[in-house]
Amino acid sequence: MNPVPANNPEEAYQQAVSGLIVAGQRLWQQGWCPATSSNFSRRLDDKSCAITVSGRDKGNLQPTDIMRVDLSGRALDGKKPSAETLLHTQLYLRDPDIGAVLHTHSVKATLVSMDAPDTLELSGLELLKAFAGITSHQSTLRIPVFDNTQDIAALAVEVDSWMKQHGTGHAYLIRGHGLYTWGRDLPETLRHLEALEFLLDWYWHHGLAARLQQD
Amino acid sequence: MNPVPANNPEEAYQQAVSGLIVAGQRLWQQGWCPATSSNFSRRLDDKSCAITVSGRDKGNLQPTDIMRVDLSGRALDGKKPSAETLLHTQLYLRDPDIGAVLHTHSVKATLVSMDAPDTLELSGLELLKAFAGITSHQSTLRIPVFDNTQDIAALAVEVDSWMKQHGTGHAYLIRGHGLYTWGRDLPETLRHLEALEFLLDWYWHHGLAARLQQD
Amino acid sequence: MNPVPANNPEEAYQQAVSGLIVAGQRLWQQGWCPATSSNFSRRLDDKSCAITVSGRDKGNLQPTDIMRVDLSGRALDGKKPSAETLLHTQLYLRDPDIGAVLHTHSVKATLVSMDAPDTLELSGLELLKAFAGITSHQSTLRIPVFDNTQDIAALAVEVDSWMKQHGTGHAYLIRGHGLYTWGRDLPETLRHLEALEFLLDWYWHHGLAARLQQD
Amino acid sequence: MNPVPANNPEEAYQQAVSGLIVAGQRLWQQGWCPATSSNFSRRLDDKSCAITVSGRDKGNLQPTDIMRVDLSGRALDGKKPSAETLLHTQLYLRDPDIGAVLHTHSVKATLVSMDAPDTLELSGLELLKAFAGITSHQSTLRIPVFDNTQDIAALAVEVDSWMKQHGTGHAYLIRGHGLYTWGRDLPETLRHLEALEFLLDWYWHHGLAARLQQD
Repeated sequence: MNPVPANNPEEAYQQAVSGLIVAGQRLWQQGWCPATSSNFSRRLDDKSCAITVSGRDKGNLQPTDIMRVDLSGRALDGKKPSAETLLHTQLYLRDPDIGAVLHTHSVKATLVSMDAPDTLELSGLELLKAFAGITSHQSTLRIPVFDNTQDIAALAVEVDSWMKQHGTGHAYLIRGHGLYTWGRDLPETLRHLEALEFLLDWYWHHGLAARLQQD
Repeated sequence: MNPVPANNPEEAYQQAVSGLIVAGQRLWQQGWCPATSSNFSRRLDDKSCAITVSGRDKGNLQPTDIMRVDLSGRALDGKKPSAETLLHTQLYLRDPDIGAVLHTHSVKATLVSMDAPDTLELSGLELLKAFAGITSHQSTLRIPVFDNTQDIAALAVEVDSWMKQHGTGHAYLIRGHGLYTWGRDLPETLRHLEALEFLLDWYWHHGLAARLQQD
Repeated sequence: MNPVPANNPEEAYQQAVSGLIVAGQRLWQQGWCPATSSNFSRRLDDKSCAITVSGRDKGNLQPTDIMRVDLSGRALDGKKPSAETLLHTQLYLRDPDIGAVLHTHSVKATLVSMDAPDTLELSGLELLKAFAGITSHQSTLRIPVFDNTQDIAALAVEVDSWMKQHGTGHAYLIRGHGLYTWGRDLPETLRHLEALEFLLDWYWHHGLAARLQQD
Repeated sequence: MNPVPANNPEEAYQQAVSGLIVAGQRLWQQGWCPATSSNFSRRLDDKSCAITVSGRDKGNLQPTDIMRVDLSGRALDGKKPSAETLLHTQLYLRDPDIGAVLHTHSVKATLVSMDAPDTLELSGLELLKAFAGITSHQSTLRIPVFDNTQDIAALAVEVDSWMKQHGTGHAYLIRGHGLYTWGRDLPETLRHLEALEFLLDWYWHHGLAARLQQD
């Protein structure tokens, strides 16, 4: 299990809050969290995580914009969790090694998600090695692409079903919506996210050029 | 009505000024207010608003670059209002719940505006939920596109006529010029603006790729 | 004539230096001055200007990276002026109202310059009004495009000859090289530059889309 | 030989560390070092260099993220060097005038590298003059493009063989991976890197437009 390393629960929570605030500034500046979209979380222990409150400006998070939820997605401090909290907590329940989850909304992830097949396969790129466990550019990263829905419980079931069949993997896309990625801790998850945004940006431009060459 | 929350008119004005200065820095850094273009306003009460003075650098606004106008667009403090002030005040007059108006000039908004039909319809994107009152990606956001003119009074009449028929909506484009959006207060209006810029950027790239696929 | 407003020549020089340093930070951050390229100047009086020294990092200019030259391009302080100094001084000689000149190297200006006709004509865009003297989007901005050469004296003659025939105008492009623009003072020249970069970015994207539509 | 100018080895190392940290911030902000990718080095003397430790966040390097290696790539301080250290040290061994090496992973370099011929030839652009020894835009810059491999020793042999035949040059690309460039010191190498990123960005967009024109 990968909680925040700390001497006590309050210190763990404060470290999770600081980490999510700094991550938000970094991700917003790259244009991946426009218009208060996106949500970020950090595991606190085997029963709870810290997560961003619904609808806050991710580029300028304040400590009051973070809350505690249990792993069924219920608020532990009276604040209103994001509707998508369940997509975070299902990952913490599925794999005790997952310590952080980031969900973002970039233009390129949105563009790719809308034309992509049900599973996006990426290979031949050195940056694939940014993902934990991948040691060669000749590996293939498989990213499932789910249809968007406002029924988050139903989407969580679909994600769960895919993962039971194919393994947890590193990330998934939701069509016209954004991406989810995760890792052992916040730095690893930020690394996965930056690698995904790079790969999706590459994929988009490469696809345009390939269409022109085929003409 | 959504004025700045404050104890007295002078405090309200100072808060409006601070809010517009910070908004300008944020929007300029994203490239949406080049070359002293764009203008921003904040309702002060039922009879007046604070608005940027004509021709100032929006990325580096000073308190003296903001002024007071009444809702017919007349200066209340001797400064020179932007020619487009009327497009702001007509919104405050139309709907007492409108508390802020932002007008920006991005490259993508300009590109989209020039090829767009008279009403741009956007649907199927999660980020539509950034607009007040939209709760599903399956909703459709309708954005009228007006022809550009230097006769701002005539344009205001055209905007008014459209809104009487179709409702106030969330935003409009002016061809080869830029966009207008509004909201209850400055944070909501910034959220609408970031969502629009995202959607127009997506729309532009999506349109290019679609043309290539049809070949 | 538009020198720096100051009480004495030394104060004027110090103000010119500060202005050029801040302009460099702003322009470098937008990606318009890569790899120590570009040069900037500010008129000091009717006989001299301050200009950036050859080959310095424009995003991090120090006071020692600025020098004085007379209007024939000769160093007044023993430093080495850029090879392109003559393209600045010819503008100060031609028009006493010119108070600043900026030369930058953006990717979009380079792309447009290489495919452009000998005179680029831009019209129908609100941002044209950022240029001094233009009051309607229906005006046409004419930007001559000169072939690149390492013989700067010859290029200066060609520029001069064009301006004698067509007027000084607001800007010119050099193919595969970059753009020159000028104005009464540094803020006006920065406004012209931001407007040009916007217009060239728009022109590039618009041209790509137009080619796709014609297919 | 171009070591860091300093009074003693410890001062030289500290200067190399500071220089690499500042370079990392600058390059990361431009999006060229995503997801802890990339590595940077600075010659210390004729037998060793300072180099970034494997897998650190290049936008936020700490002094402990830099290490010393000898020119056969062996750690001199017990830290773990990047797998690609050999590609740095072979340059210091080949040419005593090389004082710094930068390796980055931008989207545009990756895109260009995957479709490029075995030698990319760039000419006709003023920014070519950013490379040491190039004095005209009419020069041609030749950049070899090597296939990617996880066998860095084999790649180093291939690089060496190319350089024996064609000269050391200024830079090379690795397909689907990134670029290497070098120079006398860190400022010159940063200048080469910014020029390369400009040229590859230009090359990508120019290639797209050229394909559209041929249709």
